[in-house]
Amino acid sequence: MIKRVLLKPDGRRLLLYAREAWAGEVTAPSPSREPLRPDGHLRWHPLRGEWIAYASHRQNRTFLPPAEYNPLAVTTDPARPTELPAGPWEVAVFENLFPALAPTDREPPSVGVPTRPGRGACEVVVFTQDATASLGSLPLARLELVADVWADRYLDLGARDDVEYVFEFENRGVEVGVTLSHPHGQIYAYPFVPPIPARELEHQAAFLAAEGRGLVEDVVAKEIEDGRRMIYRGDHVAAFVPVFARYSYEVWIAPRRAAPSIAALTGAERADFARALKTVLLKYDGLWRRPFPYIMSFHQAPTDGRAHPEAHFHVEFYPAYRMAGRLKYLAGSEMGAGVFTADTLPEDKARELQAVEVSLS
Amino acid sequence: MIKRVLLKPDGRRLLLYAREAWAGEVTAPSPSREPLRPDGHLRWHPLRGEWIAYASHRQNRTFLPPAEYNPLAVTTDPARPTELPAGPWEVAVFENLFPALAPTDREPPSVGVPTRPGRGACEVVVFTQDATASLGSLPLARLELVADVWADRYLDLGARDDVEYVFEFENRGVEVGVTLSHPHGQIYAYPFVPPIPARELEHQAAFLAAEGRGLVEDVVAKEIEDGRRMIYRGDHVAAFVPVFARYSYEVWIAPRRAAPSIAALTGAERADFARALKTVLLKYDGLWRRPFPYIMSFHQAPTDGRAHPEAHFHVEFYPAYRMAGRLKYLAGSEMGAGVFTADTLPEDKARELQAVEVSLS
Repeated sequence: MIKRVLLKPDGRRLLLYAREAWAGEVTAPSPSREPLRPDGHLRWHPLRGEWIAYASHRQNRTFLPPAEYNPLAVTTDPARPTELPAGPWEVAVFENLFPALAPTDREPPSVGVPTRPGRGACEVVVFTQDATASLGSLPLARLELVADVWADRYLDLGARDDVEYVFEFENRGVEVGVTLSHPHGQIYAYPFVPPIPARELEHQAAFLAAEGRGLVEDVVAKEIEDGRRMIYRGDHVAAFVPVFARYSYEVWIAPRRAAPSIAALTGAERADFARALKTVLLKYDGLWRRPFPYIMSFHQAPTDGRAHPEAHFHVEFYPAYRMAGRLKYLAGSEMGAGVFTADTLPEDKARELQAVEVSLS
Repeated sequence: MIKRVLLKPDGRRLLLYAREAWAGEVTAPSPSREPLRPDGHLRWHPLRGEWIAYASHRQNRTFLPPAEYNPLAVTTDPARPTELPAGPWEVAVFENLFPALAPTDREPPSVGVPTRPGRGACEVVVFTQDATASLGSLPLARLELVADVWADRYLDLGARDDVEYVFEFENRGVEVGVTLSHPHGQIYAYPFVPPIPARELEHQAAFLAAEGRGLVEDVVAKEIEDGRRMIYRGDHVAAFVPVFARYSYEVWIAPRRAAPSIAALTGAERADFARALKTVLLKYDGLWRRPFPYIMSFHQAPTDGRAHPEAHFHVEFYPAYRMAGRLKYLAGSEMGAGVFTADTLPEDKARELQAVEVSLS
């Protein structure tokens, strides 16, 4: 993998990735000429025991821009710069113009609860130059490169002193609030371990201490043995609707062994991960023959300098629809009490996905 | 408060409430003649450490029915029965026709993770016979009666052996998935203490042990002292945008003293609670001069038979919009990592709500 690091005129970093080296100069464009001045801060929620991130400079961020302007397209008209330069790069990463978290020297306000600066990073990962593609439509070789980029970002951001957790994800579809349809994911690098992975890691650590083996290893092994909810079974990686799915069509992808992050996967494991990912995405889009909206979230070991033998890299998909044409609304029970109520059984949803035929070629 | 208990033809309970007794027979109607056969069960999510409720009989529940049929209207044509009879009742409560949780004798399936029957209760609270009203538009006297009904349901459901937590809430607006615009709330009575109140109570208990006073008491006292985010300041009850708000326009209503539930409020406190509630709701609807969608969730002491000196009844509102016309989508950071990112400061949102003039008369 070749990686070129450039600087935008406003001081943000741009990383261009390709499998092969290429010659020629590249200049990093930016829709903004202003230097970035993030002013975010965190406040402590004493009842929930978690940090809330405030970044009031984000209020006016790009929102369903006219179809003719795509900031993730390559720049063709220098008078209307986008975020990305022309060139033979395959995958690009840049720092978000409206970051929720970013390096800042500003002191947080004093407001009666603990506060701290909203340090960290927010990056955008552009999967392809083709605005009409989707992550699942990319060739396997490209998905392997995307996996390499995710690994690179995990290691690179995780090495920073102000980053304790690297969260890689994709929001897909207007149903989950996505304003740009150009295929892209995001990375939030938090200065703390967020509450959901923190809780999952606690349960994983307790299981490891009690049973002497990993909790996700146990989940994966049981799903493979049961078989009813399997979506993809590779030599190294499995994809399945977990028996305890909270969402309709929820799918998890996990290596069979407890690799702590995508960066810890071998080449063979990463290739199998790409096949599992493509299989899931093609089944999603094939289910109702239309783009299937979801939140895809990576769960990896924290980068807080502590050992995490309990961590086991896995990807969780949260679909927006509970059945064709019917959105799943997260309302009182889910958001107020934290109890997910499902109208459908994981076994039935898995059967629907199993029935969708896909070709990885 | 007068309460009449009736039985629907399908075996569900109907409770009619009014301030004054009334004469005359009432028969409880039902859109369904079939006896209720709930088949829900719970599965344990080992990584999150929480129960997921499955109720596949809910899949085909009422969804945006044609405008002419409102199951929450009183029955006028016996050939098209609704959920409610004609009569001078003011507030009605009935068991949900498609409950996520209900008494059941069915054994849960054996699926490789712990399971249990989906016991408990799901009730619908109809605030008025007027389909065009809203909770905030009701007179204060009616809101006091609604508060009395919430107190009655908390005590009644909480006394059941299979109920450890009574969760009272309102989902308002198509934006949060509400299919019926007739003013109504809901109650989920869970056979366990749900994860969000459980976590909040843990932090409240730790604060009480360390500081010798209640955490919500402390939050309320500090908000009153600061004043910048106050929405309503009564003798007994306060409403404010908390300094650690996760949502734009998030508002909390709480008694100043640590009453564990709405049932523990005195008459004067309940009257003040009604004034606070009406103030918040009128400000919400006045903000953009249109109905303001939200999730309203009650936080009260568990009914699990243990003492909860740390519990302090409060109501949290989660608005659907982050600014006029712009929904707040809960996406990767919120749903995958559990980190809320806010575009706006609580102080600014509080100022907008403070500027909305309301009359409680």
